[in-house]
Order: sequence, then C-alpha cells, then structure tokens
Amino acid sequence: MSTLFSRPLSVLNVGVGSFAQAIRQAGGEATHIEWAPPANGDRAAGAALSRMVNHPRVEAANAKAVERLLAAQPRLEGIGIAGDALPGMGKRMVLHAGPPIEWTRMCGPMKGAIAGAILLEGWADSEKEAQALAAGGKIDFEPCHHHAAVGPMAGIISPSMPVWVVKNATDGNLAYSNLNEGLGKVLRFGANSPEVIARLKWMQSTLAPTLRAGLDKLGVLDLKPLMAQALHMGDEVHNRNTAASALLIKRLVPALLKSGAPASDVAATIEFMAANDHFFLNISMAACKSMLDAAHGIPDSSLVTAMARNGVDFGIRVSGLGERWFATPAPVVHGLYFAGYSMADAAPDLGDSAITETAGLGGFAMAAAPAIVKFVGGNAQDALANTLAMTHITLKRNGAFTLAALDFAGTPCGIDARRVVDTGILPIINTGIAHKAPGVGQIGAGVTRAPLACFTQAVSALARSIESLADSGKA
Amino acid sequence: MSTLFSRPLSVLNVGVGSFAQAIRQAGGEATHIEWAPPANGDRAAGAALSRMVNHPRVEAANAKAVERLLAAQPRLEGIGIAGDALPGMGKRMVLHAGPPIEWTRMCGPMKGAIAGAILLEGWADSEKEAQALAAGGKIDFEPCHHHAAVGPMAGIISPSMPVWVVKNATDGNLAYSNLNEGLGKVLRFGANSPEVIARLKWMQSTLAPTLRAGLDKLGVLDLKPLMAQALHMGDEVHNRNTAASALLIKRLVPALLKSGAPASDVAATIEFMAANDHFFLNISMAACKSMLDAAHGIPDSSLVTAMARNGVDFGIRVSGLGERWFATPAPVVHGLYFAGYSMADAAPDLGDSAITETAGLGGFAMAAAPAIVKFVGGNAQDALANTLAMTHITLKRNGAFTLAALDFAGTPCGIDARRVVDTGILPIINTGIAHKAPGVGQIGAGVTRAPLACFTQAVSALARSIESLADSGKA
Repeated sequence: MSTLFSRPLSVLNVGVGSFAQAIRQAGGEATHIEWAPPANGDRAAGAALSRMVNHPRVEAANAKAVERLLAAQPRLEGIGIAGDALPGMGKRMVLHAGPPIEWTRMCGPMKGAIAGAILLEGWADSEKEAQALAAGGKIDFEPCHHHAAVGPMAGIISPSMPVWVVKNATDGNLAYSNLNEGLGKVLRFGANSPEVIARLKWMQSTLAPTLRAGLDKLGVLDLKPLMAQALHMGDEVHNRNTAASALLIKRLVPALLKSGAPASDVAATIEFMAANDHFFLNISMAACKSMLDAAHGIPDSSLVTAMARNGVDFGIRVSGLGERWFATPAPVVHGLYFAGYSMADAAPDLGDSAITETAGLGGFAMAAAPAIVKFVGGNAQDALANTLAMTHITLKRNGAFTLAALDFAGTPCGIDARRVVDTGILPIINTGIAHKAPGVGQIGAGVTRAPLACFTQAVSALARSIESLADSGKA
Repeated sequence: MSTLFSRPLSVLNVGVGSFAQAIRQAGGEATHIEWAPPANGDRAAGAALSRMVNHPRVEAANAKAVERLLAAQPRLEGIGIAGDALPGMGKRMVLHAGPPIEWTRMCGPMKGAIAGAILLEGWADSEKEAQALAAGGKIDFEPCHHHAAVGPMAGIISPSMPVWVVKNATDGNLAYSNLNEGLGKVLRFGANSPEVIARLKWMQSTLAPTLRAGLDKLGVLDLKPLMAQALHMGDEVHNRNTAASALLIKRLVPALLKSGAPASDVAATIEFMAANDHFFLNISMAACKSMLDAAHGIPDSSLVTAMARNGVDFGIRVSGLGERWFATPAPVVHGLYFAGYSMADAAPDLGDSAITETAGLGGFAMAAAPAIVKFVGGNAQDALANTLAMTHITLKRNGAFTLAALDFAGTPCGIDARRVVDTGILPIINTGIAHKAPGVGQIGAGVTRAPLACFTQAVSALARSIESLADSGKA
C-alpha cells in the first residue's frame, strides 16, 4: 500500500464518470472507460441474458434466421386490394400501425385516421358517426403486422384500399403496404377532411389501376438493387426516399406509356408520383417486411423481426418467440420541430416504418444519407457514427446494401435482442413526428431510440422458453 | 554549437523528405513538413508569381470575377440548332473540345468523330472521303469554347446538330452544349459507324423537337437548385449524373405528356433519357460554361475560366487574359481501366468536361459523391480529401452547392491561377478515358490533374500584362 501511494497514480475508471472527474480535480490522471451494467442493472434480466449469451441453440438459430434475412429477394409484384389480398383481413376490419391496441387507448392521429377510413368505406356518413361506430365495438382493429402488412404513421389500412404487393422470391412469402398519399393533410397523420377522402378515392379509382397496368407491362421489379442504388444516392429509404422515388419513376414511366392506360390517367399518376419524394417509402417498408418475415419463426432465435409503434406503445417481435409483442410506452421524439411546434404538441412515436431499421436500413444506414441531418438533426459525423454504433447490436453486415462513405461496408443488419440488452446500445430510428391532435399532420422529424424494456422482456422470455423446453426434456 | 550537440535533437525538416529519413535512420527524431518551391522551382515563373501575390489590382479583379461566378443563375432555356444558335458558327465549320488544334495534330478519337460529323452533314459519302475533306483544308475547325459552347470528350459539334441552350439569368449570357448520345459506340469517343450516324439523325429528327416541346411546356428550368439537389444525392455532376438525370426526367416527363408531341416520340424520348445516367452531363457542362463566361474578361483577374483538353494539348483560359489559351501536352490518365485495356491504349486527356471542375464541381465536389470511387479509383476518404485540397487553390466556397458530408460546406469555387503555382496543388479532374484509336470508345475512368505549366504560363502572362500597362503609364 505504501508503495502504491509513493508513486504518481495512473487510474482507469470504469462506469460512473464522476469518480474519474474527482481524481482529475485532485490533480491526478484518470482514463474513463464507458460501461454500464447489462439490462440497465435489472438483475433478473441480466441473469437471463447471461444464460443466453453464446447459448449454442440461440447461436445456431440466429445464424439460420439472419441467413434468411440476407437471402431474401423482395420484388414488387403489383397492386392488390386490401380486403382481397391481405391474409385474414375481415370485412369490417381496420388495420393500424404498431402492436395491438384498443380504441379507447389509441392516440389522436390514429383515431382521426380510423374515422377517415370508416368514411372512405361508407360505414358512416359523418366523422361523429364514424367515431361512435369505432367506439361501439362493431369494428375489428388489428395490427397491420398480423396481416403481413405495414403502414407508415397511423398505418391505417381498410378493406377497399389498394396495397403494394411485394414477394420475397427466395422464400415465396408476400408482404403488403398501403400507397403513400403525399404530404400535408393526409390520413396517415390523422386527417380525415373531404379533400383527404377524395384523394383516397382517386387513389382507388385512378392511381392504383394505372400503376397496376404499368407494373403489368414492366414485369417484376427487383427492389433490392433499386434500394441499393438509392443508398448510393443519399437515401436511407426511411425518411429519405428522394432517389428511390426518382428511380422508381424512371423505371415505371416507359412501362406506363406502353400500358394502354388512358393518357390522362398516366399523366395524373406520374404527376402524383413526381410531387412526392416519399412515394417509395411504403414500398421500402413492404420490402423490409418481406425480408424480415422470412427470418421470423425460427425457434430459439433472438433476431428482432419487427419494431413498431402505435403512438402509445412501442413493441417488438422476435423470430423465436412467435406472434408475441414485447411492448412498453412509446417515447416522445426529441427532434427538429417545425416552426411553432414543440415536444408538448407531439404524439409519442408512431408507425410501422421502423421496419426499415429492423432490416438494417433507415437510421442503421444513415451513413448513406448525410443530407438527412437537415431533417432529423445532428451533423454528418453523427450520421456515420450512428451507423457504426449499430454494428454492435447486429449479427451481420448486408453485402447487398453497401455504404459508399464507409468504403462500401455493408449496412449493419439483423438486430440481436441479446446484444441490445448486453451493450445498452439502443436501435436508432429516423422518424417523422405527428401532432397529437388528429388531422394537424407532421410537426417535425428526428432520431429516436427503441426503448430498452422491449428487449429485456424479450430476452427474459427467450430464456424462459429455452429453459422450460430443457426442463421438460424436449430440448 | 557544443550545446546543440549535447542535447537530443528535435528536427523540423522542410522540403526534401530524404533528409528527414536519414536523421530517423541515425536514431534521431524528425518531423517532415511537405513543401515545394513555387512554380516547381521555375525561377522566372516564381518571380512573376511573387510580384502578383496580393497585388491589389489582381485582388480587386478576382473579387469581382468570383462574385459574377457565384451570382450566375443558369437556366435551361431550350434546344437550338448549332448552325443557327451558336455565335460565329460557320456553314462548313466543325467545333471540337479543348484549345485550338489543326487536323494533322488531332488525336484518333477526334479525327473519327469529325469524320462522323462530316457524314452526318452529308458533306461526304464515305469515311475515306470525309477524312480527305477534313485533311484538305476545306473545313474550319475551331474550339467549342470560341463559340460559347462545350462538348464532352471529342466535343464535336457540327452545324445541323441540336444543342442545349442555357442562359445565365443574372447577366444574360448564353452557353451551349450538344446532346448526350449515351454509352457504347458514340461519336464523342470517335465512333462513326452507320448506327452512330443513324442515332445522331434520330436525335435531330425526334429527340430534339420532342424535348423542345416539353421544355416549351415546362417553362424555364432553374439548373442551380437541380444541380445542388443532385450533389445531395451522390452526384458530382461530371462523371456521376445519375441523380441529376433522374431529377431532370422527373421534371420533364409531366411536361412532355402535356406537350402535344406525338405519343410515340414522347415514349421514345423518355426511354432514351432513362437509359443513360450521363444524360444530364452536357447540361451540367453548359450551366458551368454560362457561369464561368460571366466571370471572364475582368481585366487583371487571375481566375481560371476554362480548363479543356483536345486529346493532345491541355489548355486553360484566365479571366483577365482575354481569348488566349495557355497550353501544354495533355497527360495520359492514371485511372481504372476496363478489363483488357491499359494506359498504353489510352488517348491523352480529352474533352471540355473539365469546365465542371473549373466551376467548382466534378472532382472539386467529389466529397458529394463517395460512390464514384468505384469508377475513378480511390476510397471514400480520398473523395473528401480531394475536395478539401481544392480549397487551397480557390477563391471562395459556393454556398449554392453544399456538401452534406462536410456539414454543408460549400464547394471550393473559383480557381486562382496564382494559388495553383504558389502551392503546387493541381486542380483535380474526374474524367473518362478514351481509346486512342477512333471508334473503340471509353476504356476507363480516373482522377487526373491539370498540368502546372498552363498555370505558370498564365501567371507570367498576367505579370507581363499588368507590368506593361504600368510601364506605359496606363495603369
């Protein structure tokens, strides 16, 4: 001891930073190492994690699951009608974003969007009637995710709406999304005024059949190369789809002109697409859903196959844990708010669009899209750092989606719920922010994080599942 | 002296690196500072430079010149026919890229392209006849640059060819470029087979009038915002025009559909544009030419207003030195060669497309386009470093063209010939490489540098010009 204190101290401080600061203030030297206990100090979850780390069954399952995710080949097959196309879609059913939620707990934008869908379907004649119908238990509300579908923001899909149909050519599974309405007063932010309903009707009567005719002429459109090219053109295909939308238009227009669709419909369709830099978003989401569904349902796998928000709860699903959701209250997004708005006006995090991050795009591919920081905040270095941070919680790099700014390294892909709990590094999500009142629309955008509690629940559930099998002698 | 050698040496070595190495090999410590004498040690040029550095007349002239460059607002006005539109265009005149050159000294691709233009014009019926006519002195050859025009690679413009018309709305000056033919066997690389001539005829008969009808419907198209957006989408608008071409198509298609042009011509025009990611290049070049011409002709200014190559000579023009060219042999490009080709097959550096670098785009904006390194070589860090290096030889940053990867810093803009000579940092150019034989086409791409000798000549000439005025009492 006396020897120790007779020499100048070189201190390595692990964990609580204020200890190092105290030594420095006393004139000593201290190097601080950032570290936090796994599961944020939750003993039970930490114990479950410690049993699952390097568990051979989980490792083998994850290898299989991520292989399916990487091997998926999403292709744009065409346009369907939700009521016919979506598996299990009921006649009086309305799908919504995020994990399951009952009407009374829904956030403002979701209620507004549901009222709009009821008006569109003709189940009610006024918004008041629509709200009463929705509250009266006569309509089934289910997550898009329960029907192989995804929808941005409120994510409302009702039976008569057209949907994109994406097929994973490798495994044959299908995924769906609604069509993007553009910006301003739109259903996905809870607006339901006559102009919103009129636009949705035009999308049914004109846009969808015209696009269908164009896609019939074009044949199958491989989405992975198009998304990969968009990543080389400044998109992360979640909150920036400028390049992907332009590339889609470039591919579709020659086919539309040869499709035999009425010239005025073709012109209106092209103008509608050209006016909306987010037009590709819903296709990107369906593509990601098709890739992740292929990786879902591998027993014992801790691969995250969905992250989704309904404006009240944030939920995740995990490959080896079936149809269960692991949910916790959704955070309000710290972001860049449009003039006149603040966090006090915001609905909590909303939408299925975090399916892009789940697939290793969006916030995970932010290094591809430095210009997005003008929209979501931060600087170019943050964009690179965000992508690099995600390599600590993912299983692989996706060689099909490369990042030019990182010398063509693949995007970090395949979130392992164990690694999130172990490192405390939370999945980054680039997201839009909706006003909490229905119909106001988007009031900002930002970078947010998936909440830790979803992942600790999932890891604990995985441990119980694997250990109960072992106990019962089935494993 | 004895004190000096009794202590360990800390050596700062400036200039020749091997001195520092020798000290390190003897066990000493040396920090090396890169430095080379101005003008690469040319005494006369160095002396001229030293008299021009911080010369108040040059400083004042440059401030005015670069202000004009930055204030320019290039707009796509329409499509003209070279013989009618280009100022001073003769009836039996063929324009070419780079500084002036006589037929006998021209490189293979340029001769091949000129023969093709003669066939297109109907001045000869066979390539042999065309070559004889060209050699016989019956055709006037002049640089595009002498007629407010620019052309990529061989840069051949003959009287019947359609040309883009770009107007700088700030100063009213016009600039022109030919229309991009696409890749493969094309005139600009010296090909002149019947398919090449047939395509050029189709461009005259169908493409140009259809585009003209679309532009008439669209009205004026501001090019600066479109180019700025393309920089945020991975283009540097010289060797990468993928985004700019897609954005142009997105803008043009709705107008084309309403233009009244025959539907089959509209379809063919859109397909032609959509098949060529370089389609925007020639518009980008004309836009840059219009910006730089606005800055040309300011007495005493050392701002470089053109860098251009004819496949034999590399030449520059300087704002304060009138219509003179300062030329030196063009280098062969060290680049990435397509399979089966090497530097031995290459024509020396060729084309007016370095007008983009002269305007602060292309290689100067490489930080916007990390994906281009797959095409021209290097890595993502090189792309950033190339842009940063160019800040040492330019007068300003262009706030209209920002670089997301550098936190929206403007592109380095306005090459000062004095700074090139002073620092020895040579302007970077992203370029395609043509086979030296006519008609073979592109065999690679790479990053090259403008040769120092052009700039030392220009600085010496500027010194003579300013000092002769002073001697004659006119200044």
